[in-house]
Amino acid sequence: MMNQADELQFDEKGLLPAIIQDAFSQQVLMLGWMSRESYELTRSTGLVHFWSRSRQRLWKKGETSGNFMQVVEIIADCDRDALLVRVLRKGPACHTGMITCFHNPVDKEDGK
Amino acid sequence: MMNQADELQFDEKGLLPAIIQDAFSQQVLMLGWMSRESYELTRSTGLVHFWSRSRQRLWKKGETSGNFMQVVEIIADCDRDALLVRVLRKGPACHTGMITCFHNPVDKEDGK
Repeated sequence: MMNQADELQFDEKGLLPAIIQDAFSQQVLMLGWMSRESYELTRSTGLVHFWSRSRQRLWKKGETSGNFMQVVEIIADCDRDALLVRVLRKGPACHTGMITCFHNPVDKEDGK
Repeated sequence: MMNQADELQFDEKGLLPAIIQDAFSQQVLMLGWMSRESYELTRSTGLVHFWSRSRQRLWKKGETSGNFMQVVEIIADCDRDALLVRVLRKGPACHTGMITCFHNPVDKEDGK
């Protein structure tokens, strides 16, 4: 078990990619970025917090929509430079209203 | 459907995070980084290619271990700055021999 943010490898901007997966459906919902502060808030509150790169501020997921994400578990990868956060969600993950942010399929190279 | 790498938002280093998910078990296996070249090779060959940030070179996943990853589908997110790549895998994803690179659980803030 890991305890400390010190064990994580934040990048040169102080951020880590965090993959958000629905712990119930196993669907991958989104990829967000966590600063040390958002990581620590996520752990202490049990609700997902990110660093918004576009707005350059701390962002509690669901603060506008009410669609908070409750943490079930957080797992760091072998290099400790990425996180998998398994959550229970109250509503859609995407600002478009879709369940997941991953909704733009790329077609096959050969057009099939 | 998306066709072109031009529709993707590569970062200032020319990279995109790519979440690799087992299309059979739904397990999240790893997070890798794709350059435009590795993205195009992934599409044209049907096998996952990354850009290795540590080695600063193109990296065909499985080139050493033989554990290639066969692409089932690629889905871009709403901002087109992250990819979800659903794959069939031949062996473990992690260089440690574990199925997934995500194997370091973070314990709860309260120690429970």
